Amino acid sequence: MMDNQYKLTGTLRLSKKANDLVEEFTEVFTECTDEFISEDQSWAQRECTVDGDEVEVQLGITAAPAHRFFYRLQKCIGKKMGREYHLGVKDAIVNRLEIRFEMPTEPVTELKMPFVKKLEFDGKICTAILEDVENDFIIEGAVERLMKRIEERVERQYYEGKEEFWELMEESPHREPKWDKDPSSEMVDRGWIVRGPTKGKWFYRPEITAILNAMKEIAKKEILEPMGFQEVIESNFVPFDVWRRTGHMMGVPNEVYYFSEPATRDPQFWQEFQDKVYITNDVDVDELKKLVSEPKGGIVYAQCPNIYWSFEKAVIPEEDLPLKIFENTVASARYESGGRHGIERSDEFHRIEIVYIGRPEQLNELKEELTERFHHVFDEILEINWRMAWVTPWYMQQSGQEGVEDETEHILGTIDFEAYLPYRGEKSDSDNWLEFQNLTIAGDKFTDAFTIKTQKGDLWSGCSGIGLERWAVVFLAQNGLDPEKWPDGFKEYLSELPKGFRSY
Amino acid sequence: MMDNQYKLTGTLRLSKKANDLVEEFTEVFTECTDEFISEDQSWAQRECTVDGDEVEVQLGITAAPAHRFFYRLQKCIGKKMGREYHLGVKDAIVNRLEIRFEMPTEPVTELKMPFVKKLEFDGKICTAILEDVENDFIIEGAVERLMKRIEERVERQYYEGKEEFWELMEESPHREPKWDKDPSSEMVDRGWIVRGPTKGKWFYRPEITAILNAMKEIAKKEILEPMGFQEVIESNFVPFDVWRRTGHMMGVPNEVYYFSEPATRDPQFWQEFQDKVYITNDVDVDELKKLVSEPKGGIVYAQCPNIYWSFEKAVIPEEDLPLKIFENTVASARYESGGRHGIERSDEFHRIEIVYIGRPEQLNELKEELTERFHHVFDEILEINWRMAWVTPWYMQQSGQEGVEDETEHILGTIDFEAYLPYRGEKSDSDNWLEFQNLTIAGDKFTDAFTIKTQKGDLWSGCSGIGLERWAVVFLAQNGLDPEKWPDGFKEYLSELPKGFRSY
Repeated sequence: MMDNQYKLTGTLRLSKKANDLVEEFTEVFTECTDEFISEDQSWAQRECTVDGDEVEVQLGITAAPAHRFFYRLQKCIGKKMGREYHLGVKDAIVNRLEIRFEMPTEPVTELKMPFVKKLEFDGKICTAILEDVENDFIIEGAVERLMKRIEERVERQYYEGKEEFWELMEESPHREPKWDKDPSSEMVDRGWIVRGPTKGKWFYRPEITAILNAMKEIAKKEILEPMGFQEVIESNFVPFDVWRRTGHMMGVPNEVYYFSEPATRDPQFWQEFQDKVYITNDVDVDELKKLVSEPKGGIVYAQCPNIYWSFEKAVIPEEDLPLKIFENTVASARYESGGRHGIERSDEFHRIEIVYIGRPEQLNELKEELTERFHHVFDEILEINWRMAWVTPWYMQQSGQEGVEDETEHILGTIDFEAYLPYRGEKSDSDNWLEFQNLTIAGDKFTDAFTIKTQKGDLWSGCSGIGLERWAVVFLAQNGLDPEKWPDGFKEYLSELPKGFRSY
Repeated sequence: MMDNQYKLTGTLRLSKKANDLVEEFTEVFTECTDEFISEDQSWAQRECTVDGDEVEVQLGITAAPAHRFFYRLQKCIGKKMGREYHLGVKDAIVNRLEIRFEMPTEPVTELKMPFVKKLEFDGKICTAILEDVENDFIIEGAVERLMKRIEERVERQYYEGKEEFWELMEESPHREPKWDKDPSSEMVDRGWIVRGPTKGKWFYRPEITAILNAMKEIAKKEILEPMGFQEVIESNFVPFDVWRRTGHMMGVPNEVYYFSEPATRDPQFWQEFQDKVYITNDVDVDELKKLVSEPKGGIVYAQCPNIYWSFEKAVIPEEDLPLKIFENTVASARYESGGRHGIERSDEFHRIEIVYIGRPEQLNELKEELTERFHHVFDEILEINWRMAWVTPWYMQQSGQEGVEDETEHILGTIDFEAYLPYRGEKSDSDNWLEFQNLTIAGDKFTDAFTIKTQKGDLWSGCSGIGLERWAVVFLAQNGLDPEKWPDGFKEYLSELPKGFRSY
């Protein structure tokens, strides 16, 4: 593996002209740059040229970050020349930074990268040239993240278009489906669900509401309550900063519903708009735009980010671990654009999100118990054909990081639960199965991101999303819409549908 | 009352030059304008001047809408001159429209009005001059709505700053409060509620979640289920068109949270943004704005608009009336900016919205039964000091129409339920009472707006919003946070709090 090579040209702007201090300055420059590196390192290039209050600096080095030294140089000069010569560095900029580094994989196609003026590949060797790099960019580690991002984007070229990682873990015994219709289109015909009022959303009438409530009740009585999960209610609104930390803003910004506030609540600014709505009986969105703020965040995409946020900087007493939490109030909104189908793939759906925070071994036990209880529900209550598989962790996808961790152990990562949809076709074809449930152990990704700790030792977290619409769809697709034909276990939760609302 | 006076100057653009048809045209002009008016009406002015393919028209008339005649004139000319002379009107514009009309009240201060070039008042007489009025504006009735809007804005000058209409209807016997603290600040201290993650929102931990769930359960068991209300689940997103029809876009556009979609879901348009988030570990909202659509609608403000929408154009069988509906899933979001206080006035809260659609007399009966059941809950279960009052209808406020209908009858309109908050001070001071519940009969406002009908006769609607946070606050403010001191009736629903989550 080749060591990273850095070549940097930068400009320091001094607090005063230094033409009469060239010798002293050059000496300090050498002293400082000597201090930065260890014994086994050496400068391939280091030069400074003083010109009035400007100094041009050239640094070249292998296996050590020249840009970070350029930043430290500014401090070092001030420290060594401040008292005696009243000289310091006012500001500085890297005019050009050339980085050559070896990547684990060779790129398949070209790549564009923000902040990079020129990006070239020679096999696995990447040369990236940056211009006008400011101190903040260096201090905040953006150069290093940029290099990592290039590697990652190259690596992803190998995954793109390929199928998700999928490994069957367990499958239910075959149960002869009692029905072969599409529950959603059947429910539209019966008026149980109404499309709208905005794109990709549904209005649920009493019949399907009762079914979704039954699913919720089953999850509570069979899984959450006996296991001691405690309910919380979170906000429907997520600030960018929370999603920045969970990785959603990087992973799924194109699937998010954004929200804005009124730019002001002061009625006088709204009077004209309101008058116009009254007079024209119409909403002029161009006018409205001027009165509305920029996006302030998004509508909940999955419940866990706000849950983690609520524990930000908490130190959890060891004896309270694992924490068992669920959220059951807020819907999830995802902009699907294409690929919508009925209530099984829509822009808005209802999940019970289970979150657990604890020791790695505790979470592993919890996973076992959850899985057992899920099986019980699917076998004894919903009576469906189901299977479970080990898949690419969802949270890695959501943060844009494809890849599978710990394939052999099956601890860190995600299990998908899928069920057969007879209306789609043959059971043997995977396209006719629907993921209706998942279960993840995310390691320390989120506890780290929100600095959630216990007194000592590792603290992990994980979550499991129970999609109520998905539970309903797989249940109905295999058991039909007629309550009389439903399994006895389910009838204990719902044996009769409400009469609903008739209309012509 | 003075009759409205109209003076109009308009230009017709003909399908061809008509210099050689001046006589014929003038005759048709006279014929048409004669046809428009009834025997007891007369034109104060009517002239037309043909100049090439343009005709200048002047119309003056009292107690009849000159602008509508100007529009009809265009059709009339085509009808009478089309076949014989191949002449018609290509397009037309009102260059100037002067309207003088008498208002019920005199303005207190000046007024600005969109679309009005000049607005003058002489006592109750208003003179409004419009310029460049297009056909669409006329056809869609915007001129008439504009006149109505002026009257309304003038009328509102008398209400502004005045207290809401409020008339005590009934009050509970005095119950000695068991507590005098502010439940919200106490709950913050105990970690039951966490502020955020965005402005004016809260995260509810298990203790308060259990209390809110108990309130929900009480409403269901004591009110909704015995009365046969059926539950629906609506979308969290409301399109502008629904709020246009309910009046929210005119009434409360400055209190609404707006939503936008990704301008595209196509990953290639998002790649650079995602790379930048990764590299800078920051979200650049200016970049994001370019990738996000204009506002597409708002987040639910109250549940009823989407419920009414779901019955759009329905004809409800008479024998099914009254329809009894409730929604219990979606939260309400209102941009409060100032005046927030704890969970009793925040930007996001949870309501059970009850909606009823039926005959006027059915709704009146329903109101009686609901009121009785509410009293039972407040007296026997929550054991609070409450009172009910007849107030300015909320839906009129929401649609910007202040005023009280039917004061004497107390049928059409709103009842507020209020409760005493001991922590605020003396019971005798109305400022120390909190509205925690309301009940409205809205007449045909919403059934009309969404064309909801029954086979024959009037169809009215109404709604009642049960604010779960408000129920919780008034209960806790008077009964305290210690479950042991709670009334027995409430203990039947919740006698013990969950242990919650400890952290340091």
